[in-house]
Amino acid sequence: MRDAYVVGAGQSRYGAFPDESYRSLFTTAYEAAMTEADLDAAAVDEAVVGTLGVGGRQIGLSGPAVTEHVGLHGVPCTRVENACAAGGYAVRSAVQAVKSGMADVVVAGGFEVMTDLSGDVSKYWLGVSGETEWERLTGTTFSGVYAQMASAYLDAYDASPDHFSKVAVKNHANGAKNPKAHLGFECSLDDARSAPMVAEPLNLYHCCPTTDGAAVVVVASADVAASCDHAVRVAGVGAASERVGLFQRDSYTSIASSRRAAEAAYEMAGIDAADIDVAEVHDCFAIAELLAYEDLGFCDPGEAPRLIDDGVTELDGELPVNPSGGLKSKGHPIGATGTGQVVELFDQLTERAGDRQVSGADIGLAHNVGGSGGATVVHVLEGGASP
Amino acid sequence: MRDAYVVGAGQSRYGAFPDESYRSLFTTAYEAAMTEADLDAAAVDEAVVGTLGVGGRQIGLSGPAVTEHVGLHGVPCTRVENACAAGGYAVRSAVQAVKSGMADVVVAGGFEVMTDLSGDVSKYWLGVSGETEWERLTGTTFSGVYAQMASAYLDAYDASPDHFSKVAVKNHANGAKNPKAHLGFECSLDDARSAPMVAEPLNLYHCCPTTDGAAVVVVASADVAASCDHAVRVAGVGAASERVGLFQRDSYTSIASSRRAAEAAYEMAGIDAADIDVAEVHDCFAIAELLAYEDLGFCDPGEAPRLIDDGVTELDGELPVNPSGGLKSKGHPIGATGTGQVVELFDQLTERAGDRQVSGADIGLAHNVGGSGGATVVHVLEGGASP
Repeated sequence: MRDAYVVGAGQSRYGAFPDESYRSLFTTAYEAAMTEADLDAAAVDEAVVGTLGVGGRQIGLSGPAVTEHVGLHGVPCTRVENACAAGGYAVRSAVQAVKSGMADVVVAGGFEVMTDLSGDVSKYWLGVSGETEWERLTGTTFSGVYAQMASAYLDAYDASPDHFSKVAVKNHANGAKNPKAHLGFECSLDDARSAPMVAEPLNLYHCCPTTDGAAVVVVASADVAASCDHAVRVAGVGAASERVGLFQRDSYTSIASSRRAAEAAYEMAGIDAADIDVAEVHDCFAIAELLAYEDLGFCDPGEAPRLIDDGVTELDGELPVNPSGGLKSKGHPIGATGTGQVVELFDQLTERAGDRQVSGADIGLAHNVGGSGGATVVHVLEGGASP
Repeated sequence: MRDAYVVGAGQSRYGAFPDESYRSLFTTAYEAAMTEADLDAAAVDEAVVGTLGVGGRQIGLSGPAVTEHVGLHGVPCTRVENACAAGGYAVRSAVQAVKSGMADVVVAGGFEVMTDLSGDVSKYWLGVSGETEWERLTGTTFSGVYAQMASAYLDAYDASPDHFSKVAVKNHANGAKNPKAHLGFECSLDDARSAPMVAEPLNLYHCCPTTDGAAVVVVASADVAASCDHAVRVAGVGAASERVGLFQRDSYTSIASSRRAAEAAYEMAGIDAADIDVAEVHDCFAIAELLAYEDLGFCDPGEAPRLIDDGVTELDGELPVNPSGGLKSKGHPIGATGTGQVVELFDQLTERAGDRQVSGADIGLAHNVGGSGGATVVHVLEGGASP
């Protein structure tokens, strides 16, 4: 099997940008990634673009609509969509394209523009990724779905809403060090505790924002990577699906697709969870970060609150999680999110993450969840492994 | 590079099915394909599903929403979308997955349910694949876009609307032999000539219908294919993008992405256009089939009308095109169309196409166009090449 490397990565700022379009945001991310890789458009064999298509802009052919804007018309372009995991699956497809031998340089990116919609429309658009008949059509938003998981978790284990608030405090502390973050400010435990309720037991600080943004990574073969300044090997890729509707699942306190995707990624990389030095996980809601700790094997079921209490996942802890600020503070521009996680790991594993650099990070994990777990993808990246 | 084979293929009937859902249609296609491949769900490493998401059913996560219904929850599933080429790109992604070594058995499918929408909504949904700012928002439908191409073609070459009508007559003659076809009846040249105008110079018989349907193929590695009853090698895959908006292109009488995709597919397969024995091409409008003849290298620019006049592309001609009936007669359930073309070629190249069997067909070509050419994918399949 051919090796695949990330050789460049870039992103726009995440936030609310009334003066930007999906194309301008994508262009910013693309140009940053290509500049870093020191490659130009003529080198690109293929492109994969992840987006949910929020807001009714270019829905069909949204991949070619952004790649033509950066001068890649002609180049094969595939749009992939797996709800909030679209960007992670775009990276996975790019890795497969390189490993297949059909491409040496693949641009994988994602984008979303969400903040110019009214709250109701925004909820509708996110709702299209919920199970249709028994979630969306009954009025269940994603906040409601994750609130059910949070309630079940509080019932099952020794945990309290304060653990959700501590996730927010940690991620905002990291995001405050990230110049690209949407909500790049610190919050106190008191702030997080006293925020308005969204869906019991999740309050506003337990929910990520809706965000505009784009992220791009360049995935390349070993031959190409050998002449790039920076190269991070894609050591493992795991993906799995799960029943789309929460009510159809065996468990509300674990996401089976996360477990399965992580196991597959670890097996491919020949490592286990204990080898991970830094992780970007899908904290669309604070409960999701706690579930991720357990599903990714960072701790046993029910032990996630201890990791938060003990500071294990803080920036200077034993296993820093979401140094970027995560979806909570960095933001969650749906189609960009999974690609943006890989951007952060690329910076971390090449020791260029500035104030939020995790010291001695060689192996990083990105965990990107679509919907409430209908599709998950996990990447294991290995620094210091230039071809 | 590992070889990839199609080892099973199935489809639902194409048509208007008020008693079916997108899931039931997909299930019919999946079960037919898996039965033919003699594989069960446990053998499936991965799934790729193409759909535009017409009609506002499950839009996000529509891949996992259908694969869970056939018992594939757990299996990695990626939705791909490139407008009307979604199904062809799903096959391409499956081929890459097998060639990458990350999968041995991949289910590639597509579906769409369109006929339960009012005409206006249906036009809107197709419109989302047109260029947004200067086509869709100005009211240009796809009929209008292709009518511009047809007008330019009539201006440039020795051609008349009768050539469009002859495409319809040929494809209906083939579709009448296809029990799965939506409009499985013959039409006379007089019928086709005298149909109501849709968008000058294209009349109703020069336009494909809106259709419900699903199609699935099973793509497998050589090891798996060796133990299957039927195996058709994927000898070549080519894909290309192009500017999404027609008005931005250099030519209205040629689709650059079709040319580029075909060249890439021929190069990978080590053949040229003259080696093709049978082709399924993207005749969403009759003009599109004529352009395909030229863009795929079956004849020189301006010569497509001669191929139709001389019967070259009829079922018993030198190079039969659209033996299935094509989009015109078999139907065009957007996400299923490209996969369904491969289903037809699989049947043709394994000599099981019944009354519409092309005699002595060893090499087949499938040509699937998204929108008016923003994305095109071409597959070259080789029969009699069991591993």
